[in-house]
Amino acid sequence: MKNLLTNRGSVRDYLKKDISNELLNDLLQQAAQSSNTGNMQTYSVVVTRDEDMKKRLAPLHFNQRMITTAPVVLTFCADFNLFTRWCKESNAEPGYDNFLSFYSASIDAVIWAQTFCVAAEAAGLGICYLGTTNYNPAEISEILELPELVVPVVTITVGYPAEKPKVSDRLPISSLIHNEKYEVKDIKEAFSAKESLPEMKLYVEENKKETLAQVFTDIRYTKKNNEFFSEKLLKEIKDKGFVK
Amino acid sequence: MKNLLTNRGSVRDYLKKDISNELLNDLLQQAAQSSNTGNMQTYSVVVTRDEDMKKRLAPLHFNQRMITTAPVVLTFCADFNLFTRWCKESNAEPGYDNFLSFYSASIDAVIWAQTFCVAAEAAGLGICYLGTTNYNPAEISEILELPELVVPVVTITVGYPAEKPKVSDRLPISSLIHNEKYEVKDIKEAFSAKESLPEMKLYVEENKKETLAQVFTDIRYTKKNNEFFSEKLLKEIKDKGFVK
Repeated sequence: MKNLLTNRGSVRDYLKKDISNELLNDLLQQAAQSSNTGNMQTYSVVVTRDEDMKKRLAPLHFNQRMITTAPVVLTFCADFNLFTRWCKESNAEPGYDNFLSFYSASIDAVIWAQTFCVAAEAAGLGICYLGTTNYNPAEISEILELPELVVPVVTITVGYPAEKPKVSDRLPISSLIHNEKYEVKDIKEAFSAKESLPEMKLYVEENKKETLAQVFTDIRYTKKNNEFFSEKLLKEIKDKGFVK
Repeated sequence: MKNLLTNRGSVRDYLKKDISNELLNDLLQQAAQSSNTGNMQTYSVVVTRDEDMKKRLAPLHFNQRMITTAPVVLTFCADFNLFTRWCKESNAEPGYDNFLSFYSASIDAVIWAQTFCVAAEAAGLGICYLGTTNYNPAEISEILELPELVVPVVTITVGYPAEKPKVSDRLPISSLIHNEKYEVKDIKEAFSAKESLPEMKLYVEENKKETLAQVFTDIRYTKKNNEFFSEKLLKEIKDKGFVK
């Protein structure tokens, strides 16, 4: 397990080889045995294999190549629709049209999705998360025809790797672990190894910035974009009936 | 892997045997190699081992016994504090005081937490998620002294199992998988096996309800509680500076 987890990396190039429905469903089923709130299983996944569907989704994921080159695209959703319908058909009054329900369903969807990723990698597949899902949730919902109380949370592309994945750098684990109470961690200790990596120095240079942090704040994850996409995300949560 | 994932269950009773810091940190480090948004690693974990700290946390988790009986309690947090401080010290203008940043940091915290759980179970440990974290985030934050831009997301108790975990029932996987577009699934097909389980029938009877769904809507996850705790959670997100 240690070897599997520590030598992994995101896979962005895939072989032209399909994943059988049998294997895919089996991996999703294994993953569904992971924990979830009250065993309500308030999540679902939309499987995209169709070329036209991928082409429609691609621009919403900023045309990242994985969407169209991976055999399978999975959109994991926070889903209180099925559970709410069950309640209504069972003479019970559902009360899941609120923020807490949205948030806990999102957490459960991610637990499921991530366990799927570990299972998929153990089976020789490669995966890549697309963070873009939270930028364009309404547009993705429209294409996938997600109904009330269903919001897309994470998108994962899956396929047989055409590359050996690069193991990414990570912060020292001690900078992320706090004992008993939150400790103010030393910034240099946390980030200096990352900043010293040749590829990070090149990255700063290519982007014509002074510091690595500026590449994040000025180019990759800007305040302006974050605020713009926050509004869109909040609107989607509201439009799907999770907030009044 | 399949055996590990499908035969697992939450563990609520633990041996009186400690988990070494070495093992704990190693498992957290293995898990940190899983995916995260932009490799920003906007998450952290507070490790609770101290008896007094556990006693203070216990009522906030509705006195679930695992808090005081597990050797280790882990509170995984969405954390843009460290990253924001790095930006400020790097002559960069951070823009992570918004809902999208909170939500993506939450997702990344859960990916980390869940990979930790799989690694822990592979190492012979047992885990249990406590959904109560999202009910009392402000009170938990106060005890753990979580600063601005740090919100607790999931709490996990960990220890060596004193019981063989029960494998929980799950919905048929076909009820959770949608092909190309969201499909309206048959409610009977999804829930009838669950409703037919002897322990579920007993559960309905013990709670003096007509249907299993009513146990959820009237007792376990009521509209009133969900709305009350939604307000508390939204207030915490705002108080921590993620929403204006």
